[in-house]
Amino acid sequence: MAHYPEVTMPTFAECADRERMRFQDELFDFLRIPSISTLPDHQPDIARAADYAKQQLAQAGLESVEIIQGSGHPLVYGEWLGAAGKPTILFYGHYDVQPVDPIDEWISPPFEPTVRDGQVYARGASDDKGQVLANIKALEALRQAHGQLPVNVKFLIEGEEEVGGEAVSDFVASNPARLAADAALVSDTAMYLPETPTICTGLRGLVYTEWIAKGTAHDLHSGLYGGVAPNAVFGLVEMLASCKDASGRVLIPGFYDDVEVPSEAERLSWDRIPFDEDAYRRDEVGAATLTGEPGYSVFERVGSRPTFEVHGISGGFTGPGAKTVIPAAAAAKVSARLVPSQDPLAILRIMQDFAAENAPPGIEIDVQLIHRAPATLAATDHPMIRTASDALRDTWGRETVFIRSGGSIPVVGDFQEHLGIPTVLMGYGLPDDALHAPNEKFSLRNFHMGIASTGRFLELLGERAAG
Amino acid sequence: MAHYPEVTMPTFAECADRERMRFQDELFDFLRIPSISTLPDHQPDIARAADYAKQQLAQAGLESVEIIQGSGHPLVYGEWLGAAGKPTILFYGHYDVQPVDPIDEWISPPFEPTVRDGQVYARGASDDKGQVLANIKALEALRQAHGQLPVNVKFLIEGEEEVGGEAVSDFVASNPARLAADAALVSDTAMYLPETPTICTGLRGLVYTEWIAKGTAHDLHSGLYGGVAPNAVFGLVEMLASCKDASGRVLIPGFYDDVEVPSEAERLSWDRIPFDEDAYRRDEVGAATLTGEPGYSVFERVGSRPTFEVHGISGGFTGPGAKTVIPAAAAAKVSARLVPSQDPLAILRIMQDFAAENAPPGIEIDVQLIHRAPATLAATDHPMIRTASDALRDTWGRETVFIRSGGSIPVVGDFQEHLGIPTVLMGYGLPDDALHAPNEKFSLRNFHMGIASTGRFLELLGERAAG
Repeated sequence: MAHYPEVTMPTFAECADRERMRFQDELFDFLRIPSISTLPDHQPDIARAADYAKQQLAQAGLESVEIIQGSGHPLVYGEWLGAAGKPTILFYGHYDVQPVDPIDEWISPPFEPTVRDGQVYARGASDDKGQVLANIKALEALRQAHGQLPVNVKFLIEGEEEVGGEAVSDFVASNPARLAADAALVSDTAMYLPETPTICTGLRGLVYTEWIAKGTAHDLHSGLYGGVAPNAVFGLVEMLASCKDASGRVLIPGFYDDVEVPSEAERLSWDRIPFDEDAYRRDEVGAATLTGEPGYSVFERVGSRPTFEVHGISGGFTGPGAKTVIPAAAAAKVSARLVPSQDPLAILRIMQDFAAENAPPGIEIDVQLIHRAPATLAATDHPMIRTASDALRDTWGRETVFIRSGGSIPVVGDFQEHLGIPTVLMGYGLPDDALHAPNEKFSLRNFHMGIASTGRFLELLGERAAG
Repeated sequence: MAHYPEVTMPTFAECADRERMRFQDELFDFLRIPSISTLPDHQPDIARAADYAKQQLAQAGLESVEIIQGSGHPLVYGEWLGAAGKPTILFYGHYDVQPVDPIDEWISPPFEPTVRDGQVYARGASDDKGQVLANIKALEALRQAHGQLPVNVKFLIEGEEEVGGEAVSDFVASNPARLAADAALVSDTAMYLPETPTICTGLRGLVYTEWIAKGTAHDLHSGLYGGVAPNAVFGLVEMLASCKDASGRVLIPGFYDDVEVPSEAERLSWDRIPFDEDAYRRDEVGAATLTGEPGYSVFERVGSRPTFEVHGISGGFTGPGAKTVIPAAAAAKVSARLVPSQDPLAILRIMQDFAAENAPPGIEIDVQLIHRAPATLAATDHPMIRTASDALRDTWGRETVFIRSGGSIPVVGDFQEHLGIPTVLMGYGLPDDALHAPNEKFSLRNFHMGIASTGRFLELLGERAAG
């Protein structure tokens, strides 16, 4: 047997490590693009962010990379299907970000990524640019290490996640063959604790609405008409207050009818996760007290119980000083987080009925749908979930924990419904990343460990498919 | 006895009639100045409006006309004290106006006076530029007719009426000798019905506050924390809703303790005033139903009962689309209209106590005073009120009605307290003038009839003092 001099290929980890600073620089470039999807002024930034994502997919070696223009913000798609006989993973992420208000609470500008204590501060750092880029960079490093990928990959990135746009949903529904895969992988959630690899098995659904109240034909002088004229702001206040009792229980009839109780096993697993409620209240929520339905743990209240939340309210005079007006109109953004098996449209209907039947005298309240998504739940014994859990354990050196997230990722419901595949929610965020809030950040360690984790998952998946 | 050819002096009415169009043009010039007192950007317009008022006083023949700079917007003052032995009337008005939002509901631009159907549409047309100018023009026409005024006159115009500024109050308190008079005359109220001369005998007081709610340390993601985190917007909503019951009765303990019941005579007089509640609801209030405390008539609810009103509310995300945030802060403008003998500061204190004791869990609510004024009440048999009532009857050809207004004119309380004089509230507005609302207007007939009425009042006062 001839002995050839050994040709040493760098490992995946060596490739990722060598490119560490470049990967980080490219993340910062991505974060500098203010791709706020809800504000029409940022349309050109949306286009720039889509271009940047496309370029990143191409650089990672994906093929057929394209920008797909539809009704809303563009989708970005690429694929690599050279691993015959191996599974196919459909990656998903989003390049759009939340608005930045209140802007004056940011310590550094939201679109100038700034590193403090190993965290990069920028809007979208954790949600979702840092996480989606970690996955792209995992593919890039795998290609560098092996010249190819260990499994087949499809990669879909959208630009309307933060506004509940329909583009990605329509695309998934109308392209089931093109998107066919064995599982989806989404990194848009958080680890339960630092250094604690986490898979999220459940997501809450959402029905997001606007409640519009109308009272008098026009604004009136509160001196001349105060005492007889219905006040649209106060009417909306009364209406909203009547939707929950003082303990936080939702009073809209039928709201809890279809709520599924988590299994005993799942509830017991939550009890085993270390949790310091007082530190959580103080450091993470930042409140004098936690609130919510009595008789349910924090895990249950944010994971397996539905909510009714008012995100914003406006009406009447709110400038400096005083204006003595009885306002004729008011509006509030209101959502309910949903759990299995609540139907978003059924919840919308009972909200509308409740508002119609209980609006205060002289006030009309119209409840309009903005967007919706069903709750999803994955089985922890699914082979894909087990492989992901093993890959995380290998990378972080600790057992993976399974939690439910209170958040909503509507596309996970679309993958389930139209492609018939489960989604592995393998997130690299941290609980204090300040999503949707001032001073959003992402741990740079988690960025690099995320690259390593996703790379390990794909390698392990390739190995197991071969064996 | 020699017969001289008769020198015909024009009468007051002839003078006013001859100058009709010029008076109107000067009103329009006054209305073109956007002297919005609550918006700092309009500071130069405030100065221009004060200058214009000063020029008008000088043109009417008043002396010692000056602009008085103090802590806030300038006061304008002039006097004519040439009627020895005759009474002195202290006129008061204001040159500042309300903001114009919602601007898109104005049919013609708020600062481009536009005549439709005999009404001039402009911000401040009725409140108070048209009315204060009617009084100045009455003086100008009287001087033209008689070469002098029938009584002594002091004229004080302020620029902070719509923001509850303290400048006029401080000036009255510190200049009792300079402002000494037998009565004040204020035209800043409305006639009960068109062609129905009206004197307002009572004004409600006011305590105007801002309620500021704080919850979590910063905004939170409603998916991740919905179910456990206190929501400042919802907390404020709950707090405000708890201040009134569904019937409109205020639930703050002690709120009604000092409320005086109107005399039987006054209540009977209200019953005799013609009133079509359905037309009032439809055409004036523009609501599907009237609201307010059960067991009280409309006159009582707006005249002799206190109110609790929310003028505006803001907090969280209110832009287009969706943002799934648990807002950390919210604020509302809240006032109570007060009646004799409620003390504004005592009502402020019970509001503050109620908010402190009943804020929802995890929410802090701070109630801050913006401004305040006590209620006032004048006796219908006071000689000044009787002379004014006779002058109105002579001018309009109909009996004068006595009503209470639900509005507040804080300076009336200052005149009572510091000068010891009653105020004749002889207003020329109409109930549909849309004060503080889009499309404010003033009847041009009432502008000219107002000039005639004020002129007649001063002539009659001069005659009666001579008799």
